[in-house]
Amino acid sequence: MAAGAGFVSFLSDYGLDDEFVGVCKAVIWGLAPEVRIVDVTHGIAAHDVRGGALALARAAQYLPDGVVLAVVDPGVGSDRRGVAVEVGGVRLVGPDNGLLAPAVAMLGGAERVVSLTNPSYQLPAPGATFAGRDIFAPAAGHLAAGVEFGELGEEVDPSTLVPGIMPLPYPQEGAIAGEVLWVDRFGNLQLNLGPEELEAAGLRPGEPVEVRCGRETRLARWVSAYSIGSSGELLIVIDSYGLISLALPGEPAAEALGLRATSPVTLAVPTA
Amino acid sequence: MAAGAGFVSFLSDYGLDDEFVGVCKAVIWGLAPEVRIVDVTHGIAAHDVRGGALALARAAQYLPDGVVLAVVDPGVGSDRRGVAVEVGGVRLVGPDNGLLAPAVAMLGGAERVVSLTNPSYQLPAPGATFAGRDIFAPAAGHLAAGVEFGELGEEVDPSTLVPGIMPLPYPQEGAIAGEVLWVDRFGNLQLNLGPEELEAAGLRPGEPVEVRCGRETRLARWVSAYSIGSSGELLIVIDSYGLISLALPGEPAAEALGLRATSPVTLAVPTA
Amino acid sequence: MAAGAGFVSFLSDYGLDDEFVGVCKAVIWGLAPEVRIVDVTHGIAAHDVRGGALALARAAQYLPDGVVLAVVDPGVGSDRRGVAVEVGGVRLVGPDNGLLAPAVAMLGGAERVVSLTNPSYQLPAPGATFAGRDIFAPAAGHLAAGVEFGELGEEVDPSTLVPGIMPLPYPQEGAIAGEVLWVDRFGNLQLNLGPEELEAAGLRPGEPVEVRCGRETRLARWVSAYSIGSSGELLIVIDSYGLISLALPGEPAAEALGLRATSPVTLAVPTA
Repeated sequence: MAAGAGFVSFLSDYGLDDEFVGVCKAVIWGLAPEVRIVDVTHGIAAHDVRGGALALARAAQYLPDGVVLAVVDPGVGSDRRGVAVEVGGVRLVGPDNGLLAPAVAMLGGAERVVSLTNPSYQLPAPGATFAGRDIFAPAAGHLAAGVEFGELGEEVDPSTLVPGIMPLPYPQEGAIAGEVLWVDRFGNLQLNLGPEELEAAGLRPGEPVEVRCGRETRLARWVSAYSIGSSGELLIVIDSYGLISLALPGEPAAEALGLRATSPVTLAVPTA
Repeated sequence: MAAGAGFVSFLSDYGLDDEFVGVCKAVIWGLAPEVRIVDVTHGIAAHDVRGGALALARAAQYLPDGVVLAVVDPGVGSDRRGVAVEVGGVRLVGPDNGLLAPAVAMLGGAERVVSLTNPSYQLPAPGATFAGRDIFAPAAGHLAAGVEFGELGEEVDPSTLVPGIMPLPYPQEGAIAGEVLWVDRFGNLQLNLGPEELEAAGLRPGEPVEVRCGRETRLARWVSAYSIGSSGELLIVIDSYGLISLALPGEPAAEALGLRATSPVTLAVPTA
Repeated sequence: MAAGAGFVSFLSDYGLDDEFVGVCKAVIWGLAPEVRIVDVTHGIAAHDVRGGALALARAAQYLPDGVVLAVVDPGVGSDRRGVAVEVGGVRLVGPDNGLLAPAVAMLGGAERVVSLTNPSYQLPAPGATFAGRDIFAPAAGHLAAGVEFGELGEEVDPSTLVPGIMPLPYPQEGAIAGEVLWVDRFGNLQLNLGPEELEAAGLRPGEPVEVRCGRETRLARWVSAYSIGSSGELLIVIDSYGLISLALPGEPAAEALGLRATSPVTLAVPTA
């Protein structure tokens, strides 16, 4: 993470049409008026813990030191724990449902964890439906304001954190089977595959690749940027996270191929 | 409102696709470069004064002291007034069309009101179509920068403010008739009913409730959190604002029931 | 531009559903922790350089002095240049594809231009697909942190900048032919026509105007505000940018007329 203090980075599935995000930020600023808030995104699909965890992991290495607040919380009001996790110069706050796990792993693994049980650092509320406002934003604000990490609740064993689920690729003879991790704004499809896995399957940069998805099989070319290739030509690119992405020049590949997050995709050496 | 100074909280129906919000914030920061801006939401439906007024009222108690700028303004360019309203440590700025009224009431009632008529605190503009940029944001920015409240225009009688319209519930024999105030991001339906009104109708926490809406009648259970209840089971929850909400576990209730803001809903003791 | 220092104004087509915008802001704040970031808009349609250029030009005169970061970049990874352009107290950063040109012209014309070629002021990245994060946001952050303009890369001739394309109106006998520049949130249609061009065609404020668009011809009235006119009456208004807009009271005119950005529209003296 970059140097810098006094930051709260905030990711959620709250969207921006309701006042949820604004109220959480007001709560944080009420406790820590000098802090700067980085809105990572609030456009995670409602209750999509997987999508939120992946976005947080992609962003993690770029976020400033300080507090990271993440809320995608289908279990709000149940007995799922709220936690704060310390990793180096970063404290992550959110529900213990796997949302934080990939970012925590990417940042080096949890050093200390507390369960957010101390009511002195929470807002009283008539109903248990908005933990972002009543539990998580106050925890983030208090941490940003200098409250001791251990004050927020009892310490728990980091090994009890709910793990994130990362889909693993399956190597095959002359092929590698993976899945779509993420469809971005431009319709590019990020896969759970790195270039080394493609190379292990016998695929090479600059050469054609057979892409099998759904009932379709198409030829793609492994190139170095989205802007290379002619209209309609399916491209394989190493994206800005070092993962393999599928793209079509000037067109959303996700739509053209009928794929979405979690769709299976196999890349193979073309059968001659 | 929470302690803290130097804040402008900003709500509008401008959306985030055009540059309206960015330009208003640039105007505020041009006048008060040190101020922090809380985006409450800009996703109010275009011209939906009722929806904006409700969102502002829900957020009001969490907003920091300072200025609150609210713009949902179907009458822009007409003779509707622009006003600033003082309530305790808060000054609300916006059109006098009922948008501010519920928040003003919730914060304790208007103490002083000025009509925004002083052109020295407005931007000159070729056309009268963007009062947010030319009248309201400048008023908010000048107030945040320390300009005297009374400088913005002539003082007017607070009793002349356009009132907000809050729908009232109708108690019936063993039932209570209300309406949907708000459909949130997750499809939960907030009603204009509190738990005391349900109890007055003979309904009890933990017990079944008959929900009549549209042509449908369904049984619901009054529980303590969205996460309780099995898939497909309609739930009645006291939400984070202390009001009654209808929810379906992991599913948008609004869609399943075909309801939207202003839809009538009656809750009743089930007929045996 | 308004007085004030320490601002980065940021416009893009990244949308707010992915973490692109949050990561770029984190990169900027990592380099210049004290800077304030004005989100002009991130809702420009994907790869719509024309729409982004127009939004930036509309906003330009209201943005605070400092850095303006604009990214709509269909050619990312190709040989299109990244540039920084100095105009008075403002430094604009973005791809050299016409996106910056109308704002640069509106602010007075480029004084100095550098091509962003110095890798010391860029982030290393595994793939060339996210220049916003790896090239443009770092350039903006370094400029905001006080790095010398000329450090970012070699100076280039301002006359080599890719020009913006502004559609010109065509005067006719008793008529003026133009096109839709922008459909705003409320469905109002801004045209590439000013009042002086209407007057030159013989049209007068307060009088009827014949509007020819698509296969339809409708009568409109030239009035002073959207709120004037009865339901269903097509209005011609001088909007807040001094341009001619078409509007319907309380209704999106774009939908009713079936028009969108770039649609041709002719305004004429009504045939008696």
